[in-house]
Amino acid sequence: MAQLAENTYGKSRVRLVKVRRSAQGHEISDWNIDIVFEGDYESCFVSGDNSKILPTDTMKNSVYSLARDSAADCIEGFAKELVDHFLGSPIAATKVRVEISEKKWQHVEVDGIAHPATFQQRDLDRHTTVVTRGRGGQFDVVSGLKNLVIMKTANSAFEGYIKDRLTTLPESSDRLFGTEVTATWNYRGSDLAFAELRATVKGILLSTFAEHRSLSVQHTLYAMGGAVLAAVTDVDEITLSMPNRHCLLVNLAPFGQDNPNEIFVPTDEPHGSIEARIVR
Amino acid sequence: MAQLAENTYGKSRVRLVKVRRSAQGHEISDWNIDIVFEGDYESCFVSGDNSKILPTDTMKNSVYSLARDSAADCIEGFAKELVDHFLGSPIAATKVRVEISEKKWQHVEVDGIAHPATFQQRDLDRHTTVVTRGRGGQFDVVSGLKNLVIMKTANSAFEGYIKDRLTTLPESSDRLFGTEVTATWNYRGSDLAFAELRATVKGILLSTFAEHRSLSVQHTLYAMGGAVLAAVTDVDEITLSMPNRHCLLVNLAPFGQDNPNEIFVPTDEPHGSIEARIVR
Amino acid sequence: MAQLAENTYGKSRVRLVKVRRSAQGHEISDWNIDIVFEGDYESCFVSGDNSKILPTDTMKNSVYSLARDSAADCIEGFAKELVDHFLGSPIAATKVRVEISEKKWQHVEVDGIAHPATFQQRDLDRHTTVVTRGRGGQFDVVSGLKNLVIMKTANSAFEGYIKDRLTTLPESSDRLFGTEVTATWNYRGSDLAFAELRATVKGILLSTFAEHRSLSVQHTLYAMGGAVLAAVTDVDEITLSMPNRHCLLVNLAPFGQDNPNEIFVPTDEPHGSIEARIVR
Amino acid sequence: MAQLAENTYGKSRVRLVKVRRSAQGHEISDWNIDIVFEGDYESCFVSGDNSKILPTDTMKNSVYSLARDSAADCIEGFAKELVDHFLGSPIAATKVRVEISEKKWQHVEVDGIAHPATFQQRDLDRHTTVVTRGRGGQFDVVSGLKNLVIMKTANSAFEGYIKDRLTTLPESSDRLFGTEVTATWNYRGSDLAFAELRATVKGILLSTFAEHRSLSVQHTLYAMGGAVLAAVTDVDEITLSMPNRHCLLVNLAPFGQDNPNEIFVPTDEPHGSIEARIVR
Repeated sequence: MAQLAENTYGKSRVRLVKVRRSAQGHEISDWNIDIVFEGDYESCFVSGDNSKILPTDTMKNSVYSLARDSAADCIEGFAKELVDHFLGSPIAATKVRVEISEKKWQHVEVDGIAHPATFQQRDLDRHTTVVTRGRGGQFDVVSGLKNLVIMKTANSAFEGYIKDRLTTLPESSDRLFGTEVTATWNYRGSDLAFAELRATVKGILLSTFAEHRSLSVQHTLYAMGGAVLAAVTDVDEITLSMPNRHCLLVNLAPFGQDNPNEIFVPTDEPHGSIEARIVR
Repeated sequence: MAQLAENTYGKSRVRLVKVRRSAQGHEISDWNIDIVFEGDYESCFVSGDNSKILPTDTMKNSVYSLARDSAADCIEGFAKELVDHFLGSPIAATKVRVEISEKKWQHVEVDGIAHPATFQQRDLDRHTTVVTRGRGGQFDVVSGLKNLVIMKTANSAFEGYIKDRLTTLPESSDRLFGTEVTATWNYRGSDLAFAELRATVKGILLSTFAEHRSLSVQHTLYAMGGAVLAAVTDVDEITLSMPNRHCLLVNLAPFGQDNPNEIFVPTDEPHGSIEARIVR
Repeated sequence: MAQLAENTYGKSRVRLVKVRRSAQGHEISDWNIDIVFEGDYESCFVSGDNSKILPTDTMKNSVYSLARDSAADCIEGFAKELVDHFLGSPIAATKVRVEISEKKWQHVEVDGIAHPATFQQRDLDRHTTVVTRGRGGQFDVVSGLKNLVIMKTANSAFEGYIKDRLTTLPESSDRLFGTEVTATWNYRGSDLAFAELRATVKGILLSTFAEHRSLSVQHTLYAMGGAVLAAVTDVDEITLSMPNRHCLLVNLAPFGQDNPNEIFVPTDEPHGSIEARIVR
Repeated sequence: MAQLAENTYGKSRVRLVKVRRSAQGHEISDWNIDIVFEGDYESCFVSGDNSKILPTDTMKNSVYSLARDSAADCIEGFAKELVDHFLGSPIAATKVRVEISEKKWQHVEVDGIAHPATFQQRDLDRHTTVVTRGRGGQFDVVSGLKNLVIMKTANSAFEGYIKDRLTTLPESSDRLFGTEVTATWNYRGSDLAFAELRATVKGILLSTFAEHRSLSVQHTLYAMGGAVLAAVTDVDEITLSMPNRHCLLVNLAPFGQDNPNEIFVPTDEPHGSIEARIVR
């Protein structure tokens, strides 16, 4: 007979814009929230017993109601509040996970001065967090970023790899290295200065990428993760996914032209995929 | 000091169209292939040693070269060939995973007859497989489907759930139930009639969805998975993800109209997310 | 001084699912509706006079209210009703345009029989219409389809084109010809059997594409449009956009293999773009 | 008989990355280019005569070859070069149009200093241009921007509109006003300082949006366009499309909470669509 193994349910893509108004001006939080419950829901699945189910519509309502009362100003803080809100209510879930992704809005500058109530959504990259807590357990806070699109036009080589009868890639001592970084890192605690820590981690990822003499994507990925662990003691481990956004050198020889690393075709597919988890 | 934990690398989104030509007509295979290597690549990450790295560009070339010689006519078969191609070459990977997603093309009918060399890409849903093998181990074949968008307009209710001060959802004894199914199932063997098995599994998922008296998404999801396990002995377990594509009943009362379950607003967000793994 | 030239306003992406229930079973209409007003709105733009503005929120409400009372069973019919609803109310618009795009749902088959209340959204392609009417004028009905993805694996050549110092494309007497058709055609009247006409037009487009001995995309596009005009007297003119979804023959020679028109890389970019309007 | 009316053909989504290297550091141009030919191609369509067709593959090659020799540092300049390259070759086209959309890369800062060879793609918005020239005619340069996502949290009202039996929208004297601006403006000449002009236009659009006491989207759109025309004599006319990215105030009353313009649900659909062309 069939049996239920793991199961989860929840609400995804709950979108929230919260405007904070003060004498100094306004601030916008623009968050996309996913809520996931895990627990003993076997009778719900097997026999359609709904008496244990908190509707996902109520999860959505909880986001908006809690947001009104919340003082949290970072995604980690609000995720923690949401997790404890649910764990504090009579539900069958033994574990609650809240994931938040943030779109950042910046004040528009008028004559060089930030306008207090006008915003532009400028950055492609998103800040993320996943906060989980089991009933009676501790918070687990994993923060991250995604869609961080970066490129090096110097100090990147790829040589000395395996050659076989199917190899056509030429070695390069000076290639473009473009990638779209997704990073997640585990915090050692749950009462940290998350916004400052995030800024520090992001700064290290960017500066290490910039300054590394890259022999391969793997080589740079490891350097980036290692630099974060070396500098930020509150981070336990970091996972990096760095797909290779290839820029292919165009062969201009048929047209009688050289191409001294100047003219490239950026391509979305196929692409290399490099991922690793780096620990202490 | 930082240490490398898990790591993978490979090539993603390698696209292949293969045309088979026979006296009876042509057939198209249209596949999107991801290749992932796992193994002892520590020196590559830590010190930029590329001598162990088979370039992802060569992985891509391998797909096309192998496709020319392959007799495989299903994604599981070609994935197995690719895995063994890589494991048979001198690489550091101890495990190779190949994932394939298939777009289906159907012959266009002209005057009711299938035209032998003209095709339409009709279906939204994709067939998928993930084939993995460790060096010296057995094939692990997990097939599936995604983007299967279905809807029930009868025999779907949602009542008797938890009500609290944040509940606003009205109970419904007759609601629309729309979802976009993602399913993966593990085969007990690796030398099976995959195409026929897939058709059987898909047929059971659809017919169970159609005939179930649904008390909740969870309830129907479990019935669908259970029916597959009951009927197909070659399947060991099945994982189903069935986000709730809500169709909200429009309140026409302000306009002096009733709405006897007829006029709905379909919405993409927020949406319920229900997932479970069902085993024997 | 600045002056207002053309202006339009309206509501876009109003989504409607309507379920028709009868003894024989249910049917689903799944429509995405855009409403556009054109008219004398200068004071609204110039001085913020809102007294002439019907809010776009009310346009949305009108869709749902009208849908409840409507007997229209095709997108052209409902678009006409909506246009006349707005023109019949005291608004400043002198012209109203309604665009509808339809997602098609098909009954799921259980044991070979269509289940009366269960549906699958199978087809990629969308049916479209644009209905416009000026105050006191006639309906203008332009129907169409989009996302119709088709491919020929025989009877397609491309030879004899201009060669110059920048040419690298080899001629081919037998290439794959893939495209994603967008078509719009103008009807001569507004009280026609739109569903049947649409099926006829689509059938002709597909069969002409299948049977044409194609010398270029242009050549086949014209044949397709011409065949519609030749067969369907209710159609005045037809506009076709047929981007070339290239499938590139893979060069397997470096691996010591031939490639007799069998192994291709499908690419999304760059792509050829061919468009034309064909009239009587 | 069928006749060819307008026709165009060309190459779309030709992607180019050009790296400029100097002693001061590198700069990246990342452009997406569409090329469109218009002309006497009737025999190509009607009888499959390819002798007049410059293959779209050659158009693509032309982009890369020309890019190598080009000194253009803005999209308008390169588009002009491409147009004249094609008009200067023996083709049947009587008019050539080149459209370019630019992704912007910014230098990554390391310790507050811009790194000379490391870049981040930060901004969502794209710079665009459309350059057209008929054989023997003048350049027509229409530049623009798209994906400029902005929001006002003060000085935006919407009141005094038409109310009828289908109205449910409450008036608001203080609402959020979010939009995604697409703008195109026509230049009076073709030898202008395009980069500086673009920066000026964009600055005016943003500052006018920020400072306007908005009575409606129409009202602010007109103010923005008018301000550009008033300040930039090189611009002849401007077309603005400003869909209303609604942020809906959440009703927290069922939960016993007020909502003083603080908690919103941002929605993608349906949305208002407001467009206008503003001339001198």
